[in-house]
Amino acid sequence: MSAAHDDDAWLAVIGTGPGTSDWLTPETSALAARATDLVGYGPYVARLAGATQRVHASDNRYELQRAAHALDLAADGARVAVVSGGDPGIYGMAAAVWEALERADHTRWAGVAIHIAPGVSAIQAVAAAAGAPLGNDFCVISLSDNLKPWSLIEQRLHAVGAGDFAVAFYNPISRARPWQLGAALDILRGYRTESTPVIVGSAIGRPDADLCITDLARVVPAQADMRSLVIVGASTTRVIATANGPRAYTPRVYPADY
Amino acid sequence: MSAAHDDDAWLAVIGTGPGTSDWLTPETSALAARATDLVGYGPYVARLAGATQRVHASDNRYELQRAAHALDLAADGARVAVVSGGDPGIYGMAAAVWEALERADHTRWAGVAIHIAPGVSAIQAVAAAAGAPLGNDFCVISLSDNLKPWSLIEQRLHAVGAGDFAVAFYNPISRARPWQLGAALDILRGYRTESTPVIVGSAIGRPDADLCITDLARVVPAQADMRSLVIVGASTTRVIATANGPRAYTPRVYPADY
Repeated sequence: MSAAHDDDAWLAVIGTGPGTSDWLTPETSALAARATDLVGYGPYVARLAGATQRVHASDNRYELQRAAHALDLAADGARVAVVSGGDPGIYGMAAAVWEALERADHTRWAGVAIHIAPGVSAIQAVAAAAGAPLGNDFCVISLSDNLKPWSLIEQRLHAVGAGDFAVAFYNPISRARPWQLGAALDILRGYRTESTPVIVGSAIGRPDADLCITDLARVVPAQADMRSLVIVGASTTRVIATANGPRAYTPRVYPADY
Repeated sequence: MSAAHDDDAWLAVIGTGPGTSDWLTPETSALAARATDLVGYGPYVARLAGATQRVHASDNRYELQRAAHALDLAADGARVAVVSGGDPGIYGMAAAVWEALERADHTRWAGVAIHIAPGVSAIQAVAAAAGAPLGNDFCVISLSDNLKPWSLIEQRLHAVGAGDFAVAFYNPISRARPWQLGAALDILRGYRTESTPVIVGSAIGRPDADLCITDLARVVPAQADMRSLVIVGASTTRVIATANGPRAYTPRVYPADY
């Protein structure tokens, strides 16, 4: 995918990074600029669209159909950028493109060169704003049970507890999934003390960003919404006072006197 | 930390992104350019140093001393960028700076404004090069037992197995830690089938980058070295053939027929 091959068709999966801030990598900007077609959720595509690209905006569902459409365009000779938020490899469109490719019998897609560009994920932006809660071993779980059974999520939450991992939750809550975050916090309360730090970061990177550092005793699910990510600390995660307010971090050393 | 405050002292912890590629965010570039002092491991600092900054290069050990030095400089009025590789919040210098601040009695550090800039971590770059193995829930573990007991790492590996997470290993192997990767793989072999995909990515983003997609039956620790990251798939992670060779991805849907 060097500039020398700019006449060839390709499909790149790229991510805008979280929010509207300047976490968009130069690679991603360059791929968007060289694309003939941008495919993705409307607000993400709007951030990257210039004067020259054809824009194929959609809502934020039907990932497989979107991926198939992008593969069709590339098979027809286009240079297609499929646009995710955050990092396309973390709950983004990268897996959907591979899934569409695998499910299809379309030999016409078999020749499409596919490139995934890594990006800054929302969870990294929330962690940076909060301090460094993911500074040691951690897990990442989507609390949405739309695509996997809740029993598996429970199994993973117990594993997080038993392994004493810090954990970041994607999709913590929505109107259609109002109780899952509370249930997840209750499971972790079986493994951690009440003073374990909990971070709720909303719309990080946007003008209306909000960050709350609280703990397992006090956090209530209503503090989070669809724009939020939630991080629950490990047993070693702690909160310190700084010139800019409290910050949460997980030390590199475990336990502190090792 | 807006441009309006460019005369104020500050300390920013930034990451170069992996390798020598263009995954350095605009925020990180801007902070490095506005800094009066760059502190960090020599090769990382060299990537960002311009004509104007004072450079305080070190080796890649003594993180706490480096953090303390940076805090001293900022307390004396400098604009200091502490430079990590990858994302400074993931096994980078962010946690070391908070740890130095917490351990110290230095009230002179208490007024230093500290900002963490998120970046692209090496594990995201390896995942992107391999396909999308972290496209569903995953864990991240450092296999180094320099700063935590091996018994804790074992506990976390069993949790990864029980929770059926994909897992990314930082610091998988070194001359001083030759057996840990093999032991980790053996633990996961107790939970996963022999055909579970394993990815060894070395020096990703550099000219000598190397990526190997293998499986739990065939992988041997000697395939990894100090420049490598290793990803072991979940039970649902699979390998498909593409125009550019095999790619590994973890579907969004679990199980595939859910």
